[in-house]
Amino acid sequence: MKLASYKNGSRDGQLVVVNTNLTQCVAVDDIAATLQQALDNWAEISPKLESVYQQLNAGTAERAIPFDSSQCESPLPRAYQWADGSAYVNHVELVRKARGAEIPESFWTDPLMYQGGSDDFIGPTDNVALPSDKWGIDFEAEVAIITDDVPMGVLPENAGKHIKLLMLVNDVSLRGLIPGELAKGFGFFQSKPSSAFSPVAVTPDELQDKWMDNKVHLPLISHYNHSLFGRPQAGTDMTFDFAQLVAHAAKSRNLGAGTIIGSGTVSNKQGTEYGTSIAEGGVGYSCIAEVRMIETIRDGKPTTDFMQFGDHIKIEMLDEQGNNIFGSIDQNVVQAAKP
Amino acid sequence: MKLASYKNGSRDGQLVVVNTNLTQCVAVDDIAATLQQALDNWAEISPKLESVYQQLNAGTAERAIPFDSSQCESPLPRAYQWADGSAYVNHVELVRKARGAEIPESFWTDPLMYQGGSDDFIGPTDNVALPSDKWGIDFEAEVAIITDDVPMGVLPENAGKHIKLLMLVNDVSLRGLIPGELAKGFGFFQSKPSSAFSPVAVTPDELQDKWMDNKVHLPLISHYNHSLFGRPQAGTDMTFDFAQLVAHAAKSRNLGAGTIIGSGTVSNKQGTEYGTSIAEGGVGYSCIAEVRMIETIRDGKPTTDFMQFGDHIKIEMLDEQGNNIFGSIDQNVVQAAKP
Repeated sequence: MKLASYKNGSRDGQLVVVNTNLTQCVAVDDIAATLQQALDNWAEISPKLESVYQQLNAGTAERAIPFDSSQCESPLPRAYQWADGSAYVNHVELVRKARGAEIPESFWTDPLMYQGGSDDFIGPTDNVALPSDKWGIDFEAEVAIITDDVPMGVLPENAGKHIKLLMLVNDVSLRGLIPGELAKGFGFFQSKPSSAFSPVAVTPDELQDKWMDNKVHLPLISHYNHSLFGRPQAGTDMTFDFAQLVAHAAKSRNLGAGTIIGSGTVSNKQGTEYGTSIAEGGVGYSCIAEVRMIETIRDGKPTTDFMQFGDHIKIEMLDEQGNNIFGSIDQNVVQAAKP
Repeated sequence: MKLASYKNGSRDGQLVVVNTNLTQCVAVDDIAATLQQALDNWAEISPKLESVYQQLNAGTAERAIPFDSSQCESPLPRAYQWADGSAYVNHVELVRKARGAEIPESFWTDPLMYQGGSDDFIGPTDNVALPSDKWGIDFEAEVAIITDDVPMGVLPENAGKHIKLLMLVNDVSLRGLIPGELAKGFGFFQSKPSSAFSPVAVTPDELQDKWMDNKVHLPLISHYNHSLFGRPQAGTDMTFDFAQLVAHAAKSRNLGAGTIIGSGTVSNKQGTEYGTSIAEGGVGYSCIAEVRMIETIRDGKPTTDFMQFGDHIKIEMLDEQGNNIFGSIDQNVVQAAKP
């Protein structure tokens, strides 16, 4: 099943069911007005949505209209929780290596996770509007899951069943603000502005055997300024699977329905020390920072710039037949209007 | 105006208007079903709520019932954002001093703030249920504000007008988990379980001249196991006022209506180096950690224990006539059921 939230002038959008090919959709006000409402009562509501999905795919759904991802909010335009892991430890190792530090051994057994802002996500094809492009604007291409209610202390082996939907994320990062914030010890805040999610959220069964062991086993494709920048396998080098990330988040608290948990920047080692770029024949990267770190390790300093106003980023995932699964995150970076 | 969310079996509770003495309340389904709904349309809805409040205080409101704070959820039982500052730099200085470190000079000009979990707050008189009391359970008594929509980049001088409601907070902290998490560099996550807020949220005008310069100028009173533990002045030694904290949070993103921002643990220096306890004739503290730090500085090691299962905490604020303004956060710490 595929779900999206159409823009309708409200804060939470209008829940629509989207067909498997992303060509048609249908509003389902009579079942649930918003995706959060559906998640609040998932056991009762999801079978009804599934039924509409079957009709839509069979071409028998009433009131179906052409699907247009530019009309989409992020599937949850605002959420009660956005917690982002950093499950590809290769990414973390690179960051540290570039400043001459080793990662602690515990990073291979204890997931990194930060609490993100979830009150104002950006639509998947809306501009990333920021006051300055001197702050080191970067994209981070990731996979994310949405849970139902998760009890505190859930074990990893029981956490997987709480994963109800999958999405892609552009976890926009302000690299220039990160060192100062991390030095203060309280984690990210200003350095993690609003994130954007793929137009469509899908149930794990949509991925068939590409959803396995609580990981997505397909390449995550990023185009930066219309050139292929990365296509790493999301199922490879993911040190912590999504069930482990859910259990980590729930160690000392319940997670409310509609909790979003991210994978962290998808990053593959590719049998090399830190992976290789598309130009070098590798699978490339899912953020600019990794390229800059490799340049720093290799050349002593980075040469690739961070994003400037006017830059473009597209993030998507195709199935083995080349079909777009989630729709594309497709955004320009622009200067925000002054308040 | 005073507002609360009554338990009604839903996730967001039932918005009620409470009279100034906290003796009567009235459900306002016809105006807004939930506090979040009211905040989403504050300019339109707040005058209608205010009108009910006037009737309630005049004794002319229809359907008024006795107010019972044990029926309350936190005013926002779940929220889209909970960002907690650490505006009483004395508290931060103590934490560092206890481990022999000085605070950076920038801490006096650049606020500390962390992103908290907001998907599952605890009711003000509900138990604080946690899996273990070996994690260093502590309370933190704080003041918090709720905003309407705040534009990215708002200046401190324009941020104050976005403060719509005030509350108290028990920002439950797991001190034993903090050092490990902060060492990882991503800030708090497991070490900050669900917070609880006062039964009632009030508009700033309720505090009359005790709301001044975007600070609350009244003592915040904590009783730990039924003994007075602290009554520091919330308006004293608050290095950053709430308008500055809002502006800090909004530097690189909009803040959605219903954003909660906390002051951090209220802490007074009292003309001494680090403040003094109630037993020593001082105003005491708003968390156990501060006492332990003073013991560490003075005696080389802490002697006061953190909270154990069965312990009790009450947090409240009285006006100059001794009236309870927000109702009391009144909680027992208990062992959580296994998932």
